[in-house]
Amino acid sequence: MAAADLSAAQLSEKHRPTLDQALAAVRSRAYWSPHPEHPKAYGETAPADGLAAFQSLQGTRLDLGQPGTDGWTGGEVSPYGPELGVEYPHVDPDVLLPAMKAGMAAWRDAGPETRALVCIEILSRISARTHEFAHAVMHTSGQAFMMAFQAGGPHAQDRGLEAVAYAYEEQTRVPAQAQWSKPQGKKDPLELGKTFTAVPRGIALVIGCNTFPTWNGYPGLFASLATGNAVLVKPHPRAVLPLALTVQVAREVLAEAGFDPNLVALATERPGEGIAKTLAVRPEIKVIDYTGSTEFGDWLETHARQAQVYTEKAGVNTVVVDSTDNYKGMLANLAFSLSLYSGQMCTTPQNLLIPRDGIATDAGHKTYDEVVADLAASVEGLLGEDARANALLGALVNPDVKARLEAAAGLGEVALASREVTNPEFPGAVVRTPVMVKLDAAKPDDSAPYLSECFGPVSFAVAVDSTADALELLRRTVREKGAMTVGAYTTSADTERAVEEVCLEESAQLSLNLTGGVYVNQTAAFSDFHGSGGNPAANAALCDGAFVANRFRMVEVRRQA
Amino acid sequence: MAAADLSAAQLSEKHRPTLDQALAAVRSRAYWSPHPEHPKAYGETAPADGLAAFQSLQGTRLDLGQPGTDGWTGGEVSPYGPELGVEYPHVDPDVLLPAMKAGMAAWRDAGPETRALVCIEILSRISARTHEFAHAVMHTSGQAFMMAFQAGGPHAQDRGLEAVAYAYEEQTRVPAQAQWSKPQGKKDPLELGKTFTAVPRGIALVIGCNTFPTWNGYPGLFASLATGNAVLVKPHPRAVLPLALTVQVAREVLAEAGFDPNLVALATERPGEGIAKTLAVRPEIKVIDYTGSTEFGDWLETHARQAQVYTEKAGVNTVVVDSTDNYKGMLANLAFSLSLYSGQMCTTPQNLLIPRDGIATDAGHKTYDEVVADLAASVEGLLGEDARANALLGALVNPDVKARLEAAAGLGEVALASREVTNPEFPGAVVRTPVMVKLDAAKPDDSAPYLSECFGPVSFAVAVDSTADALELLRRTVREKGAMTVGAYTTSADTERAVEEVCLEESAQLSLNLTGGVYVNQTAAFSDFHGSGGNPAANAALCDGAFVANRFRMVEVRRQA
Repeated sequence: MAAADLSAAQLSEKHRPTLDQALAAVRSRAYWSPHPEHPKAYGETAPADGLAAFQSLQGTRLDLGQPGTDGWTGGEVSPYGPELGVEYPHVDPDVLLPAMKAGMAAWRDAGPETRALVCIEILSRISARTHEFAHAVMHTSGQAFMMAFQAGGPHAQDRGLEAVAYAYEEQTRVPAQAQWSKPQGKKDPLELGKTFTAVPRGIALVIGCNTFPTWNGYPGLFASLATGNAVLVKPHPRAVLPLALTVQVAREVLAEAGFDPNLVALATERPGEGIAKTLAVRPEIKVIDYTGSTEFGDWLETHARQAQVYTEKAGVNTVVVDSTDNYKGMLANLAFSLSLYSGQMCTTPQNLLIPRDGIATDAGHKTYDEVVADLAASVEGLLGEDARANALLGALVNPDVKARLEAAAGLGEVALASREVTNPEFPGAVVRTPVMVKLDAAKPDDSAPYLSECFGPVSFAVAVDSTADALELLRRTVREKGAMTVGAYTTSADTERAVEEVCLEESAQLSLNLTGGVYVNQTAAFSDFHGSGGNPAANAALCDGAFVANRFRMVEVRRQA
Repeated sequence: MAAADLSAAQLSEKHRPTLDQALAAVRSRAYWSPHPEHPKAYGETAPADGLAAFQSLQGTRLDLGQPGTDGWTGGEVSPYGPELGVEYPHVDPDVLLPAMKAGMAAWRDAGPETRALVCIEILSRISARTHEFAHAVMHTSGQAFMMAFQAGGPHAQDRGLEAVAYAYEEQTRVPAQAQWSKPQGKKDPLELGKTFTAVPRGIALVIGCNTFPTWNGYPGLFASLATGNAVLVKPHPRAVLPLALTVQVAREVLAEAGFDPNLVALATERPGEGIAKTLAVRPEIKVIDYTGSTEFGDWLETHARQAQVYTEKAGVNTVVVDSTDNYKGMLANLAFSLSLYSGQMCTTPQNLLIPRDGIATDAGHKTYDEVVADLAASVEGLLGEDARANALLGALVNPDVKARLEAAAGLGEVALASREVTNPEFPGAVVRTPVMVKLDAAKPDDSAPYLSECFGPVSFAVAVDSTADALELLRRTVREKGAMTVGAYTTSADTERAVEEVCLEESAQLSLNLTGGVYVNQTAAFSDFHGSGGNPAANAALCDGAFVANRFRMVEVRRQA
């Protein structure tokens, strides 16, 4: 299509209802999503078309037409084995960054509504290609197909749309124009005409992660773009494709809507180049979104002082097991949480705090050993068949995870041993069931394994003297190490209140007594907050006003009337 | 009164309409204020009562009943001469800070509405004592009485209320409770009950300034308190009294409403003690609001990494003089702006950029020299009578300002010489009319005086080659040095658009063609933004969503339904 094929009126007709529904959803926090979770909802030929599209990318060069392209780079290898064989542009920031700024005034002048609608058009085109994106996410993150489809597709799109809604609302809290008339007693009033314009910060940098390239990348990308910034996407070198396709779609839509496609660009790095560090401190970069290690997150917060920096880092997630009136449900729910994507979620529970004297349940008193053994059996049951195990576990995303898994068995008594699972479709995939290790909190010591994040399919069944001690340990780990999630099982109103109080005081998101089909490691856009931004695991939550409010500034021009 | 004399219902009946009006005002940006500007509006005896109350404080010890009081300190000397002779508690933070935390859970549980209403009760009691506060502000800042009354009274109270409104709105964007029901096809839907609680960051530190203790102190104080934080107020050692009285009122109201008075406390320092630095990096301090030098603002941003830091620092404010259809009005407006409070406002214009070939006006072409001479004459006319000069200028706040004023005459040709003004009521007051110095931007050089803030009654009439050059210099000073305000006079739509573009790109607040009773250095709460938060003069604006959104976090608790 030629430029400006997408008029503001067309965009409004097509997407304004979606924007309004999203705005209502973030206010009501009721369930809502415009992006179907079921692969079948995308049409009969969508699965085959998506796979074919993904396959046709392999062995190609993804030329985005970006200024400053000075070479090509690639080399992604799927955690399932195959090389992806896609090449991406390598860019000279001294050429690209000025080019990205060129279109910013027009993007700013378009205003919050048009920007929101353009963003929704980008998301809707991504949505239409969800099957293709699912394969791209699967073969970069190692997620199993269904999870890659849902978390990498509709759930990621939901999070992007949620950010767009927040950005729109934040920018429109002030009217574009106002008349101001101040009475002066018997004299004429003072009169001013005022205009208010949301202005962008500059160029925003999104530093993607390996495990959830779209889910963790979209909130920052769309929050920054919707608030008028240009966005440079720097994917994780092992998970380029999903974000490269995203950038491609964004550039297409921007051009069709009459804007400069260079408002969104991709920066791919050569092996070992480490361009995130050099880009992050460029004076043009005014916003940074990052998901990854605490070490680099802290580095960004310390050094990229010219930018607003939003980080999601490591944390230690805890489940307090005090008592339950649904023992089987609790075991099943926890077993699923520990298994999903081989525990490679920032929200996966790590520390299960269980009183050493055991717990009261609807199936009678259970000793610590019994709880641990029953949970181990529950995981084994869940993952007993290889087909189901593959569908839940996916593949280990990188050798570091495998190394941590293997080392974990040496940290204590192994309550649940990890086993290798064969993936018949992808023999190269490294698939492992989770390990659970017994530890004791009796003599707390700063080097205790349960006081550090052990990212991957590793959990610790930590024996504690009492639930009160569990809460103290919970408080300590959240305060010192951070947590994306906290879970608790209790039938006691007092204990429930006590866990809640710890979470309120330490700013941690709490799930209580989950025994059905909702898991502590899953959050739903428009309703659940992902992280709190108030403990060391993340300095921002997805998504709230604080996530968007400082990505733009409001400039007032006042004129004597 | 005894504790809990102020019930939630009483507070709601008394103040909910005010809160609703404030919420409507920040959305419409139309003129509104519940705090009268006219001294007469406070009742017939208010002036005498206020003065008597102020005088009765002198020579006393202001015992706030704070835990950890380990001595007394004071020593404020009015810029008008007299010693204030008030002593304030000196506190041991190791005792006070834990005591301040004790009441935070109850304050958090009270919820956003009750917190907002308690804050409004504090403001309304301060409002009732506006005459007393006016004397306290006058004799610490050196503002003339009428300005101390208005800027230190109703305008400061407006800014406090504005922050309360923003804080309330931000915390209530999410409902306290939600039911979430996700369809599962033919299976039962997934059901969760969710609660959302705004939780405070911790203890907030307000570091007050010398010139506007209440106006610059109230936004941070009330934004933090309304979002559930405890607030420790560290006033400037030369401007303690207005904030000490504020803390006293806040503690009274908190106690009467059934909350812990230690949620608000005062930290006064001994001479040379520099407690701001030690308090700012305490782990309990999670929010900091600061107004003052760039040097210390930058120090806070660099070192107080455990806190959200909001700073208003130095800047270089510019007025671009291109052309006017109201030459007399322009001169009168600028003369007033340069004179008000001896230019000791962060919003006072410093650089007047005037084309060396002169400008077109309704009174014919005016050369650069004529514009400068006419403006000098306008200032001289405005300040010709000592009574009026005293009422406008106030007193120099400290010897540093006087030294800068005296040094300024050596920077270039003096177009308007400063003169001493005698204050018959307060012979000890140092009162000076402003100086204006001619400079030339022909050979820009990094050490040019117009590239640094010269805080006080000093302005530079900078000759530029053209308006285009003026805009380049404007852009450079805003980008490199920051600006709280920009003014421009032009009759050209193109020039207007060009100035506006610079301000949009560099995030500066612009006033165009002010020739009447609104001045570039004044902003009105509920309508005007004070600063933009997007250039080096300040990292936050008063007041917007970003100013409040990160002072609290939202904690979700979800339960299987």
